[in-house]
Amino acid sequence: MDDMGWGDLGVLGQPSKETPNLDAMAAEGMLLPNFYTANPLCSPSRAALLTGRLPVRNGFYTTNAHARNAYTPQVIVGGISKDEILLPEMLKKKGYVSKIVGKWHLGHRPQYHPLKHGFDEWFGAPNCHVGPYNDTNEPNIPVYNNSEMIGRYYEEFKIDRRTGESNLTQIFLQEGLDFILRQNAAQRPFFLYWAPDATHTPVYASESFRGKSQRGRYGDAVMELDHSVGQILSLLKSLDIDNDTFVFFTSDNGAALVSGIAGGSNGPFLCGKETTFEGGMREPAIAWWPEHIKAGSVNFQLSNVMDLFTTSLALAGIDAPDDRILDGLDLTPVLLNNSDSLKNRAIYYYRGNEMMAVRLGQYKAHYWTWSNSWEQFKTGINFCPGQEVPGVTTHEQMNHTLQPLVFHLGRDPGEKYPVSVLSREYLDIMKELMPIVQKHQQTLIPAVPQLNMCDQSVMNWAPEGCEKLGKCLQPPKPNPWKCVWPH
Amino acid sequence: MDDMGWGDLGVLGQPSKETPNLDAMAAEGMLLPNFYTANPLCSPSRAALLTGRLPVRNGFYTTNAHARNAYTPQVIVGGISKDEILLPEMLKKKGYVSKIVGKWHLGHRPQYHPLKHGFDEWFGAPNCHVGPYNDTNEPNIPVYNNSEMIGRYYEEFKIDRRTGESNLTQIFLQEGLDFILRQNAAQRPFFLYWAPDATHTPVYASESFRGKSQRGRYGDAVMELDHSVGQILSLLKSLDIDNDTFVFFTSDNGAALVSGIAGGSNGPFLCGKETTFEGGMREPAIAWWPEHIKAGSVNFQLSNVMDLFTTSLALAGIDAPDDRILDGLDLTPVLLNNSDSLKNRAIYYYRGNEMMAVRLGQYKAHYWTWSNSWEQFKTGINFCPGQEVPGVTTHEQMNHTLQPLVFHLGRDPGEKYPVSVLSREYLDIMKELMPIVQKHQQTLIPAVPQLNMCDQSVMNWAPEGCEKLGKCLQPPKPNPWKCVWPH
Repeated sequence: MDDMGWGDLGVLGQPSKETPNLDAMAAEGMLLPNFYTANPLCSPSRAALLTGRLPVRNGFYTTNAHARNAYTPQVIVGGISKDEILLPEMLKKKGYVSKIVGKWHLGHRPQYHPLKHGFDEWFGAPNCHVGPYNDTNEPNIPVYNNSEMIGRYYEEFKIDRRTGESNLTQIFLQEGLDFILRQNAAQRPFFLYWAPDATHTPVYASESFRGKSQRGRYGDAVMELDHSVGQILSLLKSLDIDNDTFVFFTSDNGAALVSGIAGGSNGPFLCGKETTFEGGMREPAIAWWPEHIKAGSVNFQLSNVMDLFTTSLALAGIDAPDDRILDGLDLTPVLLNNSDSLKNRAIYYYRGNEMMAVRLGQYKAHYWTWSNSWEQFKTGINFCPGQEVPGVTTHEQMNHTLQPLVFHLGRDPGEKYPVSVLSREYLDIMKELMPIVQKHQQTLIPAVPQLNMCDQSVMNWAPEGCEKLGKCLQPPKPNPWKCVWPH
Repeated sequence: MDDMGWGDLGVLGQPSKETPNLDAMAAEGMLLPNFYTANPLCSPSRAALLTGRLPVRNGFYTTNAHARNAYTPQVIVGGISKDEILLPEMLKKKGYVSKIVGKWHLGHRPQYHPLKHGFDEWFGAPNCHVGPYNDTNEPNIPVYNNSEMIGRYYEEFKIDRRTGESNLTQIFLQEGLDFILRQNAAQRPFFLYWAPDATHTPVYASESFRGKSQRGRYGDAVMELDHSVGQILSLLKSLDIDNDTFVFFTSDNGAALVSGIAGGSNGPFLCGKETTFEGGMREPAIAWWPEHIKAGSVNFQLSNVMDLFTTSLALAGIDAPDDRILDGLDLTPVLLNNSDSLKNRAIYYYRGNEMMAVRLGQYKAHYWTWSNSWEQFKTGINFCPGQEVPGVTTHEQMNHTLQPLVFHLGRDPGEKYPVSVLSREYLDIMKELMPIVQKHQQTLIPAVPQLNMCDQSVMNWAPEGCEKLGKCLQPPKPNPWKCVWPH
């Protein structure tokens, strides 16, 4: 999901309980309350999911400024490196057919497209569905069917900004269901990466879901996505392949509290998208595989999106790449046996080129704290609306590396009460954590940053297929600049 | 429950998922996400539960100062008026035997005791388990078995403040189970008011639950209470009277955020105990009655503790008193038929003698806002730690009666984004709400306030039964004063 928060699921405490299908999925599967993304922003999170590697290792970050979130708007020059190995490339070794439906976000220039990186099929868009644009300063985002565009958002693929209506989720659902049906008919193993974006602003829902929730447009979008997940699981059951299909539900980052009532909920957690507080990076997560994963189980294993790379390979019986460091772990002992053999794993909270925080067990140590700058904050951009924890939700980048700010997330999931630096507890956890962090940082070799350069000439002016549609636009002359990432 | 918050149940989003029995109770029964207490503090809330009437009608409030929460500490002179009719008195008409186990809190002087107000049995204490006291300025709180004390907290009934250990919840559980067994054996209809207080500071748990949760002592207490609820429901099942027994789970007010990590969670809601924001008054609520209440249902009916009075009478086939105004509604259409016939009912949020806010449908209008005074706030007393919504969580009593501050709780459960007073939406809701509020206020006849006077001589110096135990203390001379209620 896109910008959906931990607190948006009924089973995770959303008061308006809009997710009967996801709640049922949790009741039939395993809920993972301590599941994380790799970055509090979309593109790096998705690159981490597909590579099993931290953005700082796979190139999805910027060095233009310290600790800045970067992503892939239309002006971005970079994208996923050809040196990275993506999950569908690996799955091919055992004959898996792979499709991405929805938002790609790993680069929109031709060399970065999904079909160049292991996917066999693609239906969706390379960038967010923001718009409409005027074709002069900026073209509308193209929608692809495989390697050719078949239209653009706000043109052939309508999104009504005034009413919040769009049938895109329905289209994405049909694409997903159709893919499953075809692979099942052909008896081929398959990987469906179903990545709809209805809960990212501008939030949308189709006619039959509009006005149905208590939460307004955001809740309507959640209800349609929940319904869609239910349809997918139902199809697997009716095809009698549910016991052969591993399904994982999660989101790319915390709810965008900056969008106010147009955004979702992070439940009891602090702040949201763009931040390395819990609200920015803890994700709703459900693993489902009838007869393999115990129904109604809850596992507190610390885990993250990069584990999905490694775990999927393990389930497919494919050896993980051994020529690079992978940040993902194989969760099969957790999922299949409720084992706690992975209990000493750490979770790293990165923002751009900086490790902001680390979690080990119940303890989270902030090495840096930052919400956003005073300058941005004063313009009304607030990543923690209604929340303020002095010394924690700081508007300056605070360097705590000499004495990290430590929270016990069991007692204090909202990160309000730092563990006293004078306590035995603090000394004990830092003694355990310091060598782990030191090793992590010393052995980390950052990739060439992909998100440093911007250029208007690289926008989606004339995507492949535009000629057939008569929808090619004239790009301006190349004029690259160092992208400005304010957060 | 005592000071347990909406967000403390697994099914309502507690990340550490400590309540498998309550979650199962919800799966077997009905979850009511829009259930409220009548006051954000213990005594008035409990008086409202047992009388079906707002505290301002049943006398559980103060007029010493404007909009102040008051309760029944040991120095309180007042208690539940003999003019009030309590639920067990009504249930007697159909032969019900009633027992309260745990905290009473409706007055500790002899004339206010449970056995004087309809209960047939009592095991527990009249006040909170705070202490230990020194017997000179203040006696320890007595524990009663029916009309006689059998010991005191910190003396015969141990609570270890250092370790947080006490076996009180186990004792309360056994008392409850024993009562059910006896009434079942005698084939008598019964009402058990099981009111343990382990989640009120000082929080405690018994040896077998200490250290078991991820949340520290508070979570340990929750786990023991959850376990106890499971035991009670199991007993009903094993006696084969589950289909004949209506069980309702709720709490007396929001989690005491003022206690920091010693308190619970209000999930996504604003502030906590003592306030009329959602975190102060929205309560976890589960209705359970196998074969009568639909398993796994969720009903969004606005309802409150006073409805339990009226609903219980309806279920018992007893006419409600017709000589007084009742604030509770009969929820049987909601519980038994999932009806929405009560959809136009309003919820009133009182703090002492003031109606602070009203909810109708999804809209909540604040007529007054107040967290606590600057004076108190500066001493470190914070009812909204880590939260601050400008103009909402005010430290002055802000009078909005001419233009209430309106929130849409569906879109904005955290009360962060007031509906614009210039909008059509604002005008529409106020047009609907104003006559309702006007009627409520015009027809309201406040009772004589019971919580105005304090006196050290009325403390639990020499409760009935103390002679037998040799535990009578000498009270000081009467010296009444007007109680000071700072919040």
